[in-house]
Amino acid sequence: MRRADELRELVETHLRSLLFGPELGGLEAALRYSLEAGGKRIRPVLCLAVTEAAGGDVERALPAASALELVHTFSLVHDDLPSMDDDSERRGRPSAHVVFGDGVALLSGDALLVEALRLALSYDDPAIARELAGATLDMIGGQYRDITGDDGDLETLHRLKTGALFSASVGLGLLVTGVPDAEHEPWRAFGADLGLLFQIVDDLIDGDGYARRMGLEAAKELTADVARRAHARLDDLRADARVLHEIVDAVTFRTA
Amino acid sequence: MRRADELRELVETHLRSLLFGPELGGLEAALRYSLEAGGKRIRPVLCLAVTEAAGGDVERALPAASALELVHTFSLVHDDLPSMDDDSERRGRPSAHVVFGDGVALLSGDALLVEALRLALSYDDPAIARELAGATLDMIGGQYRDITGDDGDLETLHRLKTGALFSASVGLGLLVTGVPDAEHEPWRAFGADLGLLFQIVDDLIDGDGYARRMGLEAAKELTADVARRAHARLDDLRADARVLHEIVDAVTFRTA
Repeated sequence: MRRADELRELVETHLRSLLFGPELGGLEAALRYSLEAGGKRIRPVLCLAVTEAAGGDVERALPAASALELVHTFSLVHDDLPSMDDDSERRGRPSAHVVFGDGVALLSGDALLVEALRLALSYDDPAIARELAGATLDMIGGQYRDITGDDGDLETLHRLKTGALFSASVGLGLLVTGVPDAEHEPWRAFGADLGLLFQIVDDLIDGDGYARRMGLEAAKELTADVARRAHARLDDLRADARVLHEIVDAVTFRTA
Repeated sequence: MRRADELRELVETHLRSLLFGPELGGLEAALRYSLEAGGKRIRPVLCLAVTEAAGGDVERALPAASALELVHTFSLVHDDLPSMDDDSERRGRPSAHVVFGDGVALLSGDALLVEALRLALSYDDPAIARELAGATLDMIGGQYRDITGDDGDLETLHRLKTGALFSASVGLGLLVTGVPDAEHEPWRAFGADLGLLFQIVDDLIDGDGYARRMGLEAAKELTADVARRAHARLDDLRADARVLHEIVDAVTFRTA
């Protein structure tokens, strides 16, 4: 069983090896710039760790895992645009639109989204691409709530903006492995908890969202509660969930 | 056999009846605004006409046909953004970004693209969504060439920006009908000609592209040549291609 950092290395290698559409021309450089900026790769690593814990073939799950990272990257590229959050830096480097201009950055986000779905469509089972598309749509709904300020219901906002792709990371691992739908529920409940945990910690780091609404101490207590629940859900799975426990800890104790 | 305007009415009804992702919230209004702005619906009508000529079930092809129109609409919404062509009007109405703001228009384009792929994924055969995704990627590559001025090769630019989705309109009709791949070629060659025809006429109407490069008279002659070739290709198909002939005429003689 591979550790999380070994799975991450597999993801990095697979992302670098991706062949993009032959007609993208010079646009490909913008896709690779955003995709190879690093980041934690937590969604693809989660997908691979679920695959391994569920008894699946990690190599076979790599296109699905990369597809999740491409959707995430698409959302960052569009989020950073001046008409959205207007962020000129991402992961310590100039944002795509600063380097390539707003129009090319916009198109590179569009292309990342389509490439993600092409990766998900490399499987014979259309359920994999369907789940990714559904989660992406939920995420876009969350973005809409975020930029229009219709975020009174913080739980809904986070469930859509962050949780949907975390759930899909778990779901894609199960689907690639061929776990019967009837057995998905406890795995998916874990995915929802991990997404929530990720978001609360994010808010603690940034001092907004949950941290602002509840106060720092209460948000830290909530972090500990959700982390305990996520670990407990893993204990209830009949699976070797060591790497998933490791991921819960990494999410709980991250500081950036 | 239904006439083109009857097929178009089927498309309009189907587009109005689409159920979008339940979590899009208020964003749905922006999708419907752009989608229900009218337009010729030539891509979905072409898809349905190919389906009918190839002996398929037009009703069954409706999700694929609508998916093509959603991809086209996504491209228009993003094209009109200030960072792209900066068009404030589309089909005689204010562009999406004028009505909803740049950020919401951007997200509505993203959502239209994902909804298109969800429609294509409503079929069991993943080849349908694969073809749509491939054509969309080609189209994005064409957009990139267009906005960066890398359009020295007008044929490549048009093949990607316009032709790819016309070819997919034919391809999706064939795939939905279950026409064996080995029999696709003459249909697809017709689709490529129709896409080229559409573009030359577009350039004649706008006075740019082919019209500017070749001069008006030469571009009109090219229109007539390509239209003749498209009709001839239809004659060579062993199919009742009356509606497709009608579409060639409509494209050839349109003035807007």
